[in-house]
Amino acid sequence: MRCQIFRSLCRPRSNRVSDLGCIFYCPSSQRQRLFSTTPRRNVRTTEMTDEQLAAVKIDRERLWKVLHSTCEWGKGERWGDGPTDIGMSRLTLGDADKQARDWFVETTKSLGCKVQIDAMGNIFAVRTGKNEGPPTYAGSHLDTQPTGGRYDGILGVHAGIEALKTMNDLDIETEYDTGVINWTNEEGARFPISMISSGVWAGAFSLENAYKLVEVGGKATQKSELERIGYLGTLEASHKANPIGAHFELHIEQGPILESSGGKIGAVEGAQAYKWFTITVRGRDCHTGTTEFQNRSDAMLTAAKLILHSHNKARADGCLASTGILKLRPGSTNTVPGWVQFSLDIRSREDATLSKLEEALKKDFERIANGEDVSGVNAQGTKGRGCTVEWQLDTDSPATKFYEDCIKCVEESAKSMLGTNAGGQVRRMTSGAGHDSVYTSRHAPTAMIFVPCREGISHNPAEYCSPEDCGNGAQTLLGAMLRYDRYRAEKGA
Amino acid sequence: MRCQIFRSLCRPRSNRVSDLGCIFYCPSSQRQRLFSTTPRRNVRTTEMTDEQLAAVKIDRERLWKVLHSTCEWGKGERWGDGPTDIGMSRLTLGDADKQARDWFVETTKSLGCKVQIDAMGNIFAVRTGKNEGPPTYAGSHLDTQPTGGRYDGILGVHAGIEALKTMNDLDIETEYDTGVINWTNEEGARFPISMISSGVWAGAFSLENAYKLVEVGGKATQKSELERIGYLGTLEASHKANPIGAHFELHIEQGPILESSGGKIGAVEGAQAYKWFTITVRGRDCHTGTTEFQNRSDAMLTAAKLILHSHNKARADGCLASTGILKLRPGSTNTVPGWVQFSLDIRSREDATLSKLEEALKKDFERIANGEDVSGVNAQGTKGRGCTVEWQLDTDSPATKFYEDCIKCVEESAKSMLGTNAGGQVRRMTSGAGHDSVYTSRHAPTAMIFVPCREGISHNPAEYCSPEDCGNGAQTLLGAMLRYDRYRAEKGA
Repeated sequence: MRCQIFRSLCRPRSNRVSDLGCIFYCPSSQRQRLFSTTPRRNVRTTEMTDEQLAAVKIDRERLWKVLHSTCEWGKGERWGDGPTDIGMSRLTLGDADKQARDWFVETTKSLGCKVQIDAMGNIFAVRTGKNEGPPTYAGSHLDTQPTGGRYDGILGVHAGIEALKTMNDLDIETEYDTGVINWTNEEGARFPISMISSGVWAGAFSLENAYKLVEVGGKATQKSELERIGYLGTLEASHKANPIGAHFELHIEQGPILESSGGKIGAVEGAQAYKWFTITVRGRDCHTGTTEFQNRSDAMLTAAKLILHSHNKARADGCLASTGILKLRPGSTNTVPGWVQFSLDIRSREDATLSKLEEALKKDFERIANGEDVSGVNAQGTKGRGCTVEWQLDTDSPATKFYEDCIKCVEESAKSMLGTNAGGQVRRMTSGAGHDSVYTSRHAPTAMIFVPCREGISHNPAEYCSPEDCGNGAQTLLGAMLRYDRYRAEKGA
Repeated sequence: MRCQIFRSLCRPRSNRVSDLGCIFYCPSSQRQRLFSTTPRRNVRTTEMTDEQLAAVKIDRERLWKVLHSTCEWGKGERWGDGPTDIGMSRLTLGDADKQARDWFVETTKSLGCKVQIDAMGNIFAVRTGKNEGPPTYAGSHLDTQPTGGRYDGILGVHAGIEALKTMNDLDIETEYDTGVINWTNEEGARFPISMISSGVWAGAFSLENAYKLVEVGGKATQKSELERIGYLGTLEASHKANPIGAHFELHIEQGPILESSGGKIGAVEGAQAYKWFTITVRGRDCHTGTTEFQNRSDAMLTAAKLILHSHNKARADGCLASTGILKLRPGSTNTVPGWVQFSLDIRSREDATLSKLEEALKKDFERIANGEDVSGVNAQGTKGRGCTVEWQLDTDSPATKFYEDCIKCVEESAKSMLGTNAGGQVRRMTSGAGHDSVYTSRHAPTAMIFVPCREGISHNPAEYCSPEDCGNGAQTLLGAMLRYDRYRAEKGA
């Protein structure tokens, strides 16, 4: 049986039979070399027709199976009866994360990749291409929130590995190196700056400050944990020393837009601007039973007002505001807390809108803490002796615009996969969350691919992306990488 | 020189010279016995004139010095430049509390007291009186809040010891036993039920449940810590097995009323009713960047609204409401918390008013968590998917009325001490805080003595009671105990 699509280029390496029947199944078991006397692979991306590209299919079942097998490391809370209905709790650089990392290194090495670890523990696995030049990567992260799910980050890394496996299976030769990246501490849950490691790579944070970051509720630093688990690499964590040719990141949407609109693939044009602050409210400890309201400097009551006001004001401005961490001192039922610290996360599509919100909240918080009424939060209570409010900026992530040619590769790949149904199923969107792609986009052509997740639930054990959507995402990722490889060859970059 | 006041009763034991000059200073260095062939003390309370009672003076300097010397154990945060301008952090049953307890036992034994420890670690030091009958005690506590001061509780115990020392110095014979009690875990800061040990004594809590109480943020139980520090006594913790004849407690006011009104001594008639609850708000974890407000079940935002509303509603009802503890999960800047738990402490002078507030808040909290507007807290925000609210009652302390004859002894003692200035300086008041006296009053005649503390600050390192006010309080305490002893003899109880 002769391959009808790859024709003369067809060289068997595996015995897989694609959806198209004969593709990649050839009678010869002997690998042959054509057009060259040096060893070369079977199919070059630049020689593929659109039909051929469309016929390159990932193994959806393998992707699903492998992804869930690695979720044994860092298993979280069970939320349903199914075998995969268990959340994740794989905090970065913990023992479970080390197991996932070890698996990543072993697997990509077994695929023939060259694996390097940089000074932030970011792992770069590279499959050799034909020409010199920085690799086209699929990148995401294997760490999770303390009560996270099985898809956020994890899907993107697994899809990247599945893409490399498929390239190997089908003996595809890319013009440039391709690879997969596992970024360290994307979540910012354990060491509280998210995407810190792609941030260091991009030059947004110094290595020194990143190393010093102390874990929430503990004493270990990012550096001490990198050392402890053996992932303090020697490669410089820098876009200069270790450039990226392009970065594609598959991710669950983490919101309900695709699901509610019947979309299948989001071609992500960029990411919301967001800022993270630590707000410290200082009042005075006093006895809850003997101190009348007018004599109090109640830091907890003040914090409650500030949190409520941040929500009301963000809503009015079409932004988001959230508080995910709150600590207080001294922490006794009959002592009014004199010290409260909470996180404030504000987001907007536009940098200018976000800055406006920030400035307004700074003024409003001070007035509210002083007992002045702002939008009703102090309208009914007793004016006490006031508190002070201090702002600390922890993360400033401006609105990001991804690379148009990368976005187009995503769109083309998705449309090719979905075929005649592609109509409204592929849509351009903006990411609500931050991702490592936000930092890679500062120094490399970048785009993201979103797939629906059930009810938009994420950062929750019940986060769920169906096998179909996982497969659609990984297929789109591979197609985008191959298309971009071809584009690079055409452009000569 | 012959004593002009105690006349024939005067027998020197110390060489102290009182404010009145010659009192207790007699030329004879040999103790003599009069009116009796059995060994007896110098002065009987029942034989004292009012003038003589007024002349019995504590050693104010000694009280101040000894009190601060024991504050070395459990030193907290420094807040000023003075030698005693350091707060306390002496959590119950910790190592520092053990040191303070050891000192208490040694000191009272050295004064000739019989010392017994009950099953809750309450320490009873008793100085023998003339007749059979339960002792008249001064009682308070040596434990503090994690960021407490040097006077709350500590002053009451030290004043009691100073009272016994003075009785010894002046060789006073009481009709009934007198003593000092150090109650365990009055603060409820480490094991979160306040006055649990006087509560067990009073039969308000079972010993079994008290033993099981686990420390905040740890694993030790009240029983395991009693055992560890060697204060798990054999005496039954019970008002039946170990009755109290009367209980006088000197305490700082912990509020600003005395100071702002020029008062010197509060004769406390009773204590506010209060209830402590643990409120659990359940929502759903979700991503802060990708989840629009309408899709959230934000437990932290809901908790903020409930805390603000509890304040507004308590104010409208003339009550107090406070939140001193708040915990959330999972605790990550970019995850909306799906679980928040906070303490709610509500207080009123009247039981009925408190019940009315409790019922109103229960209804309001549920409506607010469902997104309905109650008094404006949901007026501006986006209605999300709602949260649930669960109430757990931890402490129910009804309003307490103290014993009129004890209160009168306090008033008389204070007026005697202050002399012609006593006019508005002695005032009847209600305690805003709970105290061990609330439980003793269930089974023994009880009253409390309040002294001013600066700006009403308490449960704070900067809590301060001047040497003059500490001395006034201890002097009033001693006078009240002696007067009550005389009253008991007259009544024959």
